[in-house]
Amino acid sequence: MAERPTPYLQVDLEVLEGNLAEMASFASDRGLALRPHAKTHKTAEIAGRQLQSGAVGLTVATVAEAEVFAASGVADLFLAYPLWVDAAKGERLRALTENARLTVGIDSPESARALAAQLPGASVLVEVDSGQHRSGIAAARAGALAESARRAGLDVRGVFTFPGHSYAPDAMKDVAAQESRALAAATASLREHGVEPQVVSGGSTPSAHQADASVLSEVRPGVYVFNDAQQWELGVVSPERIALTAVGTVVSHAGGRVVLDTGSKVLGADRAAYASGFGRLLDHPDARIPLQAEHHAVVEWPHDELPARGSRLRVVPNHVCVAVNLVDELVVVRGSDPEPVDVWRVAARGANT
Amino acid sequence: MAERPTPYLQVDLEVLEGNLAEMASFASDRGLALRPHAKTHKTAEIAGRQLQSGAVGLTVATVAEAEVFAASGVADLFLAYPLWVDAAKGERLRALTENARLTVGIDSPESARALAAQLPGASVLVEVDSGQHRSGIAAARAGALAESARRAGLDVRGVFTFPGHSYAPDAMKDVAAQESRALAAATASLREHGVEPQVVSGGSTPSAHQADASVLSEVRPGVYVFNDAQQWELGVVSPERIALTAVGTVVSHAGGRVVLDTGSKVLGADRAAYASGFGRLLDHPDARIPLQAEHHAVVEWPHDELPARGSRLRVVPNHVCVAVNLVDELVVVRGSDPEPVDVWRVAARGANT
Repeated sequence: MAERPTPYLQVDLEVLEGNLAEMASFASDRGLALRPHAKTHKTAEIAGRQLQSGAVGLTVATVAEAEVFAASGVADLFLAYPLWVDAAKGERLRALTENARLTVGIDSPESARALAAQLPGASVLVEVDSGQHRSGIAAARAGALAESARRAGLDVRGVFTFPGHSYAPDAMKDVAAQESRALAAATASLREHGVEPQVVSGGSTPSAHQADASVLSEVRPGVYVFNDAQQWELGVVSPERIALTAVGTVVSHAGGRVVLDTGSKVLGADRAAYASGFGRLLDHPDARIPLQAEHHAVVEWPHDELPARGSRLRVVPNHVCVAVNLVDELVVVRGSDPEPVDVWRVAARGANT
Repeated sequence: MAERPTPYLQVDLEVLEGNLAEMASFASDRGLALRPHAKTHKTAEIAGRQLQSGAVGLTVATVAEAEVFAASGVADLFLAYPLWVDAAKGERLRALTENARLTVGIDSPESARALAAQLPGASVLVEVDSGQHRSGIAAARAGALAESARRAGLDVRGVFTFPGHSYAPDAMKDVAAQESRALAAATASLREHGVEPQVVSGGSTPSAHQADASVLSEVRPGVYVFNDAQQWELGVVSPERIALTAVGTVVSHAGGRVVLDTGSKVLGADRAAYASGFGRLLDHPDARIPLQAEHHAVVEWPHDELPARGSRLRVVPNHVCVAVNLVDELVVVRGSDPEPVDVWRVAARGANT
């Protein structure tokens, strides 16, 4: 059989299954509900494995993602986003609730009322800003918002936050502590307003293992299924835990460097301030990728002899969620055998609305 | 009719047509052949308009893009990439040449021989590095490579370069001068080796208007059809020339800022060192977007009163080529009328191989 044309995204099933089992076991040991964020993988096959290994449901970022996963049979979905619900979104949300238990994020009285007008009695979690300053309300104001949402006719089930600023060197523990403090303060604020939270939800991949089970009831890591160069360079995981790579071909030795065909149109262009370059080579940890274009990754090779033109290398994306969203399918292999055991459709690719 | 759910990418047909006409007229006035890079738009409808307005053919980055545009009837394609041609790529290239005149980039004797083994007599241009140090050979060595390629049985038609380092503030004129010098030196080098170049091709969108027609025979701008926040912030164009925006909804006022649903999964994550943020608001040039997530754009609003939750704003992506590659269709409007006049399929989305 001819080799698959590069670049493409490949998943190592053994590593993936190890990652799923490890997080499921961690959450179970701590008594935390696990509600993985499906925006990372966007595939029904991985969603199914997450639920089989004990996840209580899935997290999604958009109504369109919720629609894809509800159609694949997922019965419990949390839309972790401060949705603005107009009539059209309201109609789609009502259709979703026919087949799934749905919970939606709110971060203002206005968004609560807009949701309640379309979906009376909807389950909601109040979004709290734990320091990333992206969306969410201050913890001290969570109770007033919860009370207002309840008056609008919503079923306020608790609070959530996303500690996105945990994606920084040595920040994991500090940020997990901030997350706990914010969620504890929000919980107290809800109680002061007569709302007893059933769900206290947090936890990105970098911070999940620091989650304080005396405060949180649930964690929502996403990236952990695959991991990526960000998690590697942050020290969250070792490279053996990386399950997804872009397979690329060496097309040129221009300038004494290695030029691969894995550019930003398959890897994405995320590059955090702490990143060593545009992704990493899984099998050559000393190599660096200082330059990327849409169809070029320029690699500084750490050894004298460059890999031959036409040879293939595995590139770890900096941010795996955006890489997956660039392809229609994931090629599944098992360990070092290059023969695919499966091909999974990225069912929620581009499901942005 | 219900409004289209956000986020989506919208093209203003009047601005697009103005951009197409302006570049066609510039190239024609200077006696330069125009071969636009189709990786920017990936749509048959825009390719057709480019050819109707005088383009001699299209440039593409991948074999898969060439296949899409050949299938849509484009008869002359330049694959501006240092392709590594194995048996599988060879078969696809041979199929392409049945319906289109095809020219391919080479940047080493090895890649020339690999191509010649699969597609004897193939037309090629030698890729020259004009200072970006991405791919391409040094100008002084272009002639030796051309001679070697000719001996391998290829039809060497000339030289090309991509001055990607023109994407920097105040670099346009310097880089255009570097490009001219590199192409002039490569032309001289070919002649020394007995190869008379028919094609001397260069020209990114920032540098195209500085192209020296005494050296170059052809320009290959891509971004000019839409323009983007990079071109705006580099001073290449004024915002009136921006034809593509992501339409987003204000979902939150968290932290006194405007949170839009246009994140990196519809805008891309490119952020050059000179960029003011993650894209710009077309109708609010003083607003800034310092923070972006996959489904959030956090906007610092320059006025006291924030736009209402639920209202819509137009975001200009930093790098339009990667934004287009994230969606399945472009919604076409004419001027300020929000009613779509057409929807174009992004036929070559994800065509990376």
